Amino acid sequence: MVNTLFLPELREMLAESNDSDLAEFCTALHPVRTAEFMEGLTASEAWQVLQHAEVALRAEIFSYLEEERQLEILEQEDPQRLAELVAEMPSDDRVDLIHELEDDRANEILPLLPEAERRDIMRLKSHAEETAGALMTTDFVRLSASLTVREALDDLSRQAEDHETIYYLYVVDEDHQLRGVVSGRQLIAAMGKPNTTMGELMDTDIVTVQIDEDQESVAEKVERYNLLAIPVVDEGRVLMGIITHDDVIDVLRDELTEDVQRIAAVAPLDEGYLRENILTLTWKRGIWLTVLFFAAMLTMLLLRHYDTELEKYIWLAWFIPLVISSGGNTGSQSATLVITALTSGDVKVGDWRTVAIREVMMGVLLGGSLGMIGYLFALFVAPSPYAAITIPITVLLVISSGAIAGGLLPLLFRRLELDPALMSNPFVAGIVDILGIMIYINVARIVLSGAVE
Amino acid sequence: MVNTLFLPELREMLAESNDSDLAEFCTALHPVRTAEFMEGLTASEAWQVLQHAEVALRAEIFSYLEEERQLEILEQEDPQRLAELVAEMPSDDRVDLIHELEDDRANEILPLLPEAERRDIMRLKSHAEETAGALMTTDFVRLSASLTVREALDDLSRQAEDHETIYYLYVVDEDHQLRGVVSGRQLIAAMGKPNTTMGELMDTDIVTVQIDEDQESVAEKVERYNLLAIPVVDEGRVLMGIITHDDVIDVLRDELTEDVQRIAAVAPLDEGYLRENILTLTWKRGIWLTVLFFAAMLTMLLLRHYDTELEKYIWLAWFIPLVISSGGNTGSQSATLVITALTSGDVKVGDWRTVAIREVMMGVLLGGSLGMIGYLFALFVAPSPYAAITIPITVLLVISSGAIAGGLLPLLFRRLELDPALMSNPFVAGIVDILGIMIYINVARIVLSGAVE
Repeated sequence: MVNTLFLPELREMLAESNDSDLAEFCTALHPVRTAEFMEGLTASEAWQVLQHAEVALRAEIFSYLEEERQLEILEQEDPQRLAELVAEMPSDDRVDLIHELEDDRANEILPLLPEAERRDIMRLKSHAEETAGALMTTDFVRLSASLTVREALDDLSRQAEDHETIYYLYVVDEDHQLRGVVSGRQLIAAMGKPNTTMGELMDTDIVTVQIDEDQESVAEKVERYNLLAIPVVDEGRVLMGIITHDDVIDVLRDELTEDVQRIAAVAPLDEGYLRENILTLTWKRGIWLTVLFFAAMLTMLLLRHYDTELEKYIWLAWFIPLVISSGGNTGSQSATLVITALTSGDVKVGDWRTVAIREVMMGVLLGGSLGMIGYLFALFVAPSPYAAITIPITVLLVISSGAIAGGLLPLLFRRLELDPALMSNPFVAGIVDILGIMIYINVARIVLSGAVE
Repeated sequence: MVNTLFLPELREMLAESNDSDLAEFCTALHPVRTAEFMEGLTASEAWQVLQHAEVALRAEIFSYLEEERQLEILEQEDPQRLAELVAEMPSDDRVDLIHELEDDRANEILPLLPEAERRDIMRLKSHAEETAGALMTTDFVRLSASLTVREALDDLSRQAEDHETIYYLYVVDEDHQLRGVVSGRQLIAAMGKPNTTMGELMDTDIVTVQIDEDQESVAEKVERYNLLAIPVVDEGRVLMGIITHDDVIDVLRDELTEDVQRIAAVAPLDEGYLRENILTLTWKRGIWLTVLFFAAMLTMLLLRHYDTELEKYIWLAWFIPLVISSGGNTGSQSATLVITALTSGDVKVGDWRTVAIREVMMGVLLGGSLGMIGYLFALFVAPSPYAAITIPITVLLVISSGAIAGGLLPLLFRRLELDPALMSNPFVAGIVDILGIMIYINVARIVLSGAVE
């Protein structure tokens, strides 16, 4: 995957300390691409190359390097120069990075930062993870309502480069309470009337998030209102920071991934699959597997309870996996469909009747057709065509109940204000397994007792 | 869920045709909120209320109504007035909506649109779904390189309202080929030097997407480069449109939902769960269930093949569901973890060795501990403590092979350039079921033959 196209040239330039070419390399391309071409370099080589970009660009290229590489550099390079770099980084990114850094190393670098930056980092670090406070940046434009369009534009033209976004200008009063917002578009549209004040221009019905609000609801608001950024306020409506659309995209990805993992009965990971500690990972899987293991134990006890039937009709045992997995798979499908529909808002708890009806219909259709296939197989192994009927009847009932259970249990969980994704597929499957065995044996009893007479 | 707070007042205003209050209602709040408060109204009531907002605002509020409601209105209201509305809508949204509309109805409305809008809709409709062309909007700012900062700003201030985003200005030559891009920030920062030309200001290393490029790769680029919008070009690098960040968020949600559905062995839905036709839905589930059903048939044939063992040691049959589901659940966990890690880029095909090692370690840890629990249960039901050893050994082996299969099969699929999510959990489970039965019976044979001697 690593892009090695320029590696030899880069190494050569470094060897000859060919400053002009290195400077050219840093400025020629989009910073993301520059970062990509540096992937093959060692941390210290990369750091040397970066020295040829002026500090703002250096910080931007740096921000596109892979996290491991960034940390390596922060661990080993000169604290003074690193402090300059960190001071230039977007306030939200640098906090996340410092979170990852060894404490004593962080304590070497932080004191070298300008007072303001240092306090900013401390403040942001204090917010709980996965809250608005932890996501927000403090690089945003704060204006007073009395400012005119002309003044605002002058203001912006001076500081446009220092802010993560200048596309929303936030109007605050003397105690920094949020009063309104002016979009860059409104400002430019109003250039014709340069003496209009921000107070006249601003929208006052603003969508905000609380500083301790969960990141999921932050993403939801930004998505619903199609915002480029959303302001973060405290209880006193004081403007603390903003969250920009790119961070929201990351949140969305994380939240959906967590759902998928819950659906598969894994407690959500904090790190990537490869970075997560192997014991933690085992634990996050083990807790659920154990629960499901005990569920499976019940099927064992059930079968043991019915062992007279099994001994008499051993061929019934051959179909156990078939019965179990048909029900389980159908249940997983229904659960996943309903869970994803709940997350995307397609289905609400109030729709449970509709869901039930749809799942019954699908259960009967699927169970009926698969039952028929099952019957054909059963004909070959069952003692009589009549006895073979046990299989299609069971398959029909098991698949139908799998569909209903899978469809309704997530809704029940949502109703109980639990995370529907907790009603994970294997969990549904576990319940359906037990149900399936009971159905199977009882159908067999009835059918076969009939056969005996 | 519907917000009924203002319904009585709204209905009263309509009854008294209290135009001033209705106009006030339309303008007072953020359009999203206005739309929410109208949810409870009938389509025609909503339409009446909308008449009190000037057409641009009307289009915006309309765009936030639920799709069903929008379609109702388009089906039943006066074509002429609807045409005015459609003409004001963002070009990408209105095309999606017209896609949903009955053809003959669409043919009533479209002719009433201004020539330019009508051609624009036709052009956009022509692109395949899930491609850049189908996502893009044609409301964007096109400038020539010779334009100065002052001219550009004047230009913008005149048309700021007509464009979906003015935060990127695209510089094109006389044949509309894309030459560069100037960000709103750069433009404002350059206000100090009003005679600089766009040509001097623009970035020329631009990230673009091809008009037929898949929406997934569009989202990937926007996410990676933190863009607010990405330009769409044809083979000749002619600028056709742009895709904005809010559409990218929708794509991201769709793509991840599709993955989840594939993981649960459902062919991805085109509509929401409730809107999808019940037979289509059954089919999308049935194809996979059938595949898995036949896989389960193999376990039946296997067990039948080993029936002498089963007859001799009937207690083995009691543990079949336990063996099956332990393997299946572990497999699902591993598959999901690796599939999500692939999507988020944490894991690459090249990491297969690391994945294998991690899965083996986890498999042994999980299988070992659950095996011990299993042994305790087996002690009670197995004829001898020695015979009971069959269970822990099987559990250990089945869980380990489940982990390995689940971890590596998605990587294999990616390697074969198939969608890893196709290696869905139930599919992995199906394979592991068969594997599990073979392991189980053979372990039993070896252990119990030992018992006999």
